[in-house]
This record gives sequence, structure tokens and C-alpha cells, in this order.
Amino acid sequence: MNPTGLKHLIRPLVRQLHPYVYGEQPKIKGLIKLNTNENPYPPSPKVLAAIRAAVDGRLRLYPNPTAEGLRAKLARLHGCTPENILVGNGSDEVLALAVKAFTEPVGATRRVGRAKPATVVQYFTPSYSLYPVLAEIHGAVKNAVPLNPDFSLPGRPELKHGKEWDFRAALTLITTPNAPGGRGYATAELETLCRAQRGVVVLDEAYVDFAEENAMALALKLPHVLVARTFSKAYSLCFQRVGYVVGHVELIAAMNKIRDSYNVNGLGQIAAEATLDDLGYYRANFKKIVATRAQLTRDLSLLGFQVLPSQTNFILAKPPLFPAEDWLQQLRDRKILVRWFPAPEVTEYLRITIGTPAEAAALVKAARNILLA
Amino acid sequence: MNPTGLKHLIRPLVRQLHPYVYGEQPKIKGLIKLNTNENPYPPSPKVLAAIRAAVDGRLRLYPNPTAEGLRAKLARLHGCTPENILVGNGSDEVLALAVKAFTEPVGATRRVGRAKPATVVQYFTPSYSLYPVLAEIHGAVKNAVPLNPDFSLPGRPELKHGKEWDFRAALTLITTPNAPGGRGYATAELETLCRAQRGVVVLDEAYVDFAEENAMALALKLPHVLVARTFSKAYSLCFQRVGYVVGHVELIAAMNKIRDSYNVNGLGQIAAEATLDDLGYYRANFKKIVATRAQLTRDLSLLGFQVLPSQTNFILAKPPLFPAEDWLQQLRDRKILVRWFPAPEVTEYLRITIGTPAEAAALVKAARNILLA
Repeated sequence: MNPTGLKHLIRPLVRQLHPYVYGEQPKIKGLIKLNTNENPYPPSPKVLAAIRAAVDGRLRLYPNPTAEGLRAKLARLHGCTPENILVGNGSDEVLALAVKAFTEPVGATRRVGRAKPATVVQYFTPSYSLYPVLAEIHGAVKNAVPLNPDFSLPGRPELKHGKEWDFRAALTLITTPNAPGGRGYATAELETLCRAQRGVVVLDEAYVDFAEENAMALALKLPHVLVARTFSKAYSLCFQRVGYVVGHVELIAAMNKIRDSYNVNGLGQIAAEATLDDLGYYRANFKKIVATRAQLTRDLSLLGFQVLPSQTNFILAKPPLFPAEDWLQQLRDRKILVRWFPAPEVTEYLRITIGTPAEAAALVKAARNILLA
Repeated sequence: MNPTGLKHLIRPLVRQLHPYVYGEQPKIKGLIKLNTNENPYPPSPKVLAAIRAAVDGRLRLYPNPTAEGLRAKLARLHGCTPENILVGNGSDEVLALAVKAFTEPVGATRRVGRAKPATVVQYFTPSYSLYPVLAEIHGAVKNAVPLNPDFSLPGRPELKHGKEWDFRAALTLITTPNAPGGRGYATAELETLCRAQRGVVVLDEAYVDFAEENAMALALKLPHVLVARTFSKAYSLCFQRVGYVVGHVELIAAMNKIRDSYNVNGLGQIAAEATLDDLGYYRANFKKIVATRAQLTRDLSLLGFQVLPSQTNFILAKPPLFPAEDWLQQLRDRKILVRWFPAPEVTEYLRITIGTPAEAAALVKAARNILLA
């Protein structure tokens, strides 16, 4: 078979896609892995015990299709009802569902009365690099608008005069705190931004547990605002793929209609429930990570790195002397893996996950050796 | 907020959707659950041990994004390369990806040269009731074509003359063996059907391990044919959501581009790999289930049920004396849960999962009591 012989079977949209580029998961012995913002601390012993206790003949059965138990606990945590919550196969699925539920693919729209087609997925750059991929997969129109140069949010006058912001975008996705910038945003500022939007706004709070503020209140106050969260990063559960979204019952019901029937694996549901029963353990880890972040910021600054203020479990840092991409390789040669993005706004930076104090110290030592070499 | 006040934020397509109706997962003590085709036997002790051994600090890390280890083992099993395989969050995700990769939503199509828009998702009725839902979610055109009255496949002349079959459908989904009919199809017959199609064909072999034949060879022989499998039913792993699809590298690559980056949870990957290392355990269970199926078929036939021949781990049976829906309730009153579908082709039938010999005997006893009551 000719290698291009099946092209006609595949949608042109799919053929043209550039898939999301995820951070490497290499198997290098002794590697210090600071590239994908995983938590350096393991899940709570109680969570591990709860999972182990569930590994028996029940695995033959389907999991709860709506993550009922987990949603009940999350509802108590956030002061809402289970109908305000949808659980996803990681928050990536939640984001994909929002794109599919609230935006029309280009060409699939018909004018309803005088309204314009609601085809626009809008987001700031830099932010989570999955957003444009999700818009492309769906065939939506992307509207990428630059953050201010210091990664702060443009205010309403700036958006109106300088930036091609769409106040009628069907869907606006905001990473808060920002990734890969690390900057946190005040809830008051987010509220102003949300109130100006006529479409749905998703506040993607993947990193919010490391921040000073969170905007969950907006999801319960403003009917067009959804807040997405994940158990991956703050709750050390990347492996099991559990995320969720909170918001108005009508929007949640719409996303619910289009998800896979059994979208969240059973051991993931059990792990997430056990996590909510032991939040003290995780909160202690957040404190450790925030302290390590402060120490690493000081140490790298002393070596000449320009480290941006972070409210997340990573920092974005402009390394001295030579290009970030070269630093990436030099650190890798010393078995330290960090992340570098080819996107223009951040090409001079490295994104470094906050590891344990020992991992952070190893990074600082390696950086010093590279500078002295 | 007015309960209909957010309608304008939700796509008309999504508002109009009828979501998939999944089988109940009730928590009734002592219930004999024969409604969702789960395997009555637990996963192999080696599989349970492998999962337990993996429940540690590594859960903080992302799983392998392409299920590399599992794909390597599956490739050896099926005599293909890992690039011929995509692993999904259950085979439901695989089916959804096929719809999205190979069919255009209505209105999102543009005529390419003289070719007609490739918007049609085609399937037989009855078959897996998820197919129309997936087509509707995507905005594709559904083409549902009846099977012969005995649930056998219509041959080419019947399709041409009697049934509005589309030989150019972008995607054809075939449940083989059939669900909920239970009938198995000969590979030779499937091959004829596949060869007549110009679009992609997915042979959905969710139940094939209980059948006499499988059609995996077609996925490796015909470039437009994909075979979908799952670990859920035959391999007692519903809880962990692992399915896969085998086919030509180009089609697999297209589906790969549009899936979520980390779509398969880590413990699910580990469980599936361990399963492939202990196939003897599962094959012994298939034999037990096939034997129970034969016994249950005989016993129910003696009570006046018309039981269709089955190559799956369930039977479709027309109960005597009163309507199937009433039987559903009467059995439920006796703590036995089976499945009834309101679809016209099967409304006179009950679908009964093959449980253990004891569960099957309890069902027969309950049926006898209902008849004598």
C-alpha cells in the first residue's frame, strides 16, 4: 500500500493537525525529572492504602458512570451540589468537552436569528499549549491574545484598544495561575474579565493549590463561568487521570451529554475520594513546595537567572549567558530534565518544576557547574 | 437564574442530544447483576498482584502517554507493529475517535473536487446502541440499516435491493459478534462486506473472545478496516477502562492526533499488560462461560424462552407469557438484574449476561417461580 494511499479516508482537518506536544517521560536511571510539573511527594499513605484495598474481584465491574461518590464529596468541599460538578479523565478531558459543548466547528454553524456563529475559542498567550490544539481538533476558530509582557492580565481598556480580544467569544480559556508563566491572578481581576464576556469562560485552575487565591467562588456566582481543577499536580495523582469542573448545572449537563459513558476509571475515583479525606497531608506538601520555590528562586537569581514570581509548582526562568535551549541540553547531560517551549513569548525561558529540596539543590549545583565550565 | 437562561451558551446540537443510556449500576445487597455483560470471574491473581505492586509513589507521575509497553505486547500478540495499535480509555473512546477522525460533521464539509461530503456513520440495527449517540455528538449523518430478522448480516444483494445501505459511508461500525443479538459472524462474510465499502470499517469485537472466530486478520490485510477490542468484558477489567484498536498505521496515526494526551490511566495500563502475561487464566474462564451459556440456553428453552444462538457472554431471549419489560421488573423484584432495551427490534427480548453457574441457576429458578406464580 502506498503510504499516502489512505489520505482520502481521513478528514482534511485531522490530516492538517499539529498534535499537542507533551513533556517527555523518559526512562533514564537517576534522572531528576522537573519537566512536567508533577508533585515531588507521593500520594498520602491513606490514599495508597485505599487503592490497594480496592484491588480485587470488583475490577471486573464497571465503575460508577458519573463518579457519584466523588462528586458528592467535591460538592461538600466547594459548597455546591453534585449537579454542579462533572468529573473527567483528567482535566484535559474537561477542557476538550468544554470546547465541544460550547463552540461550533467552522462551517457547521447556521445563523440563528441575527446572532453570529459562536465559533471562537479564545485564550491568552502564553498559556496552556493544549488550548489551540483542542480548538483545531474541533475545527473552532482560535483567538490567541497576548498577555502583558510581564504575563499579567490585560485590563479592559488594553483589551479594547490594543488587543483583538473578542468579548463575544463562545469560549474563553484562562490558565490561572498562568502556565508556563507561573503568575497568579487576583480573583477580583478575573471577575472583571469574566463579567465582560458574553460566552462561557473556563478558569483552568490546575495549579491553584500553590497560589494565594482561587476563583472557585466565581463558578458559583456567575452562571457562565466554569472552574476546572485536577488531582494530578497538587494531589500527586497524574497516573490515574482525575480532573473536574464546577459550574452552573445547565453547562455541566451539556458537557455531561457528550462525554464517554464510563470516562473515569474506578481506581482513580477511589483514589480521589480518599484524597479528599486526607487534605491535611496535601496541604503540608503545598507549604513545602512553596518554601522550596522561594529557596530555588533566590538561588537561581544569585546565579544570574531572571526568575518570574510564581504562584504554581514551577518557575519560569530566563537563564544567563547562553540560550535556554542550550541550557536544556546541558542540564539534560547532567541528568536533570526541565522544559523548554519553542513558542516565541517564552523561548528565552526554562520552565522548571519545583521538586524536593534535594532536587532543587541538585539543579542549582548543576547550573553553577554549567556556568563555571 | 432562569433555568433556560443559559441555553444560548450551549450548541444547538448538544441541546438536542439524547445521551447514551447505560446499564444501571445499583447498589443492592445480594443483587445478581446480569445487566451489563461484565465477566463473573475476577481478574487473574497475577493481575491483581501486579496492580497492587504498582500502587506507590509513582502514582504522582504521568502514565506513559502512548501506552508504549502495552502496545508492544499487543503487537506481539497480534503479529503487527506497535504503530498499528492505539490504546483508548475503554473501547468506547476508540469508537468516538473513529467517528471524529473519519467523518465530517454536517455543514462542516466542503466539496473536495467532485467527491461527496463524507458525513455518514453507518451501522446495523440492532447493534451497540452507542453508535447513533456518537454520530449525533459529532453531528454526523446516521445511517441505521436493519440486520436480517434473525440478526444475520444482510448479503450484498439484499443490501443493494432491499436496504438503504451506503457503500460510500465514511465510517461503518459493525458489532461482531453482534450485541445485543449475540450472533457471531463468519470472517469470510465480514470480509465480503468490508471489501464492498469505500470508507473506513470498524469491526467492534468487544465480545469476540467468547466466539468461534475473530476477524483480526482483516485489520492487517485490508487497509481501511480497523478492529476494536476491549479488556473490559473478556478480561474482567471494566473498572480500569482499557480498550484498543488495530489497523493501518495511517488510520491509527489520524486517531492518535485527536485523542487526549494522557488518555489511559497508569494502573489500567499495568493491569492490561499483566493480563497479556496470563492469558491461560482467562481462556479457562472463556470455556466456563461458554459452557454456562449452553446450559442456560437449554434451561431457559425448557421454560419456554426463545433463546437466540450466542457467541458472546450474554444471550438474547424472548420470554414466554408476558412482555419482556414485565419480566425485567419481576426478576428485579427477585434481586436479579437483566437488561431490556426499548428499541423496536428487541423490545420483546431480555438480554441476559452469562454469570457463574450458580447465578445462571438462580436465574432459571426465579424464572420458573415467576411462571408458576
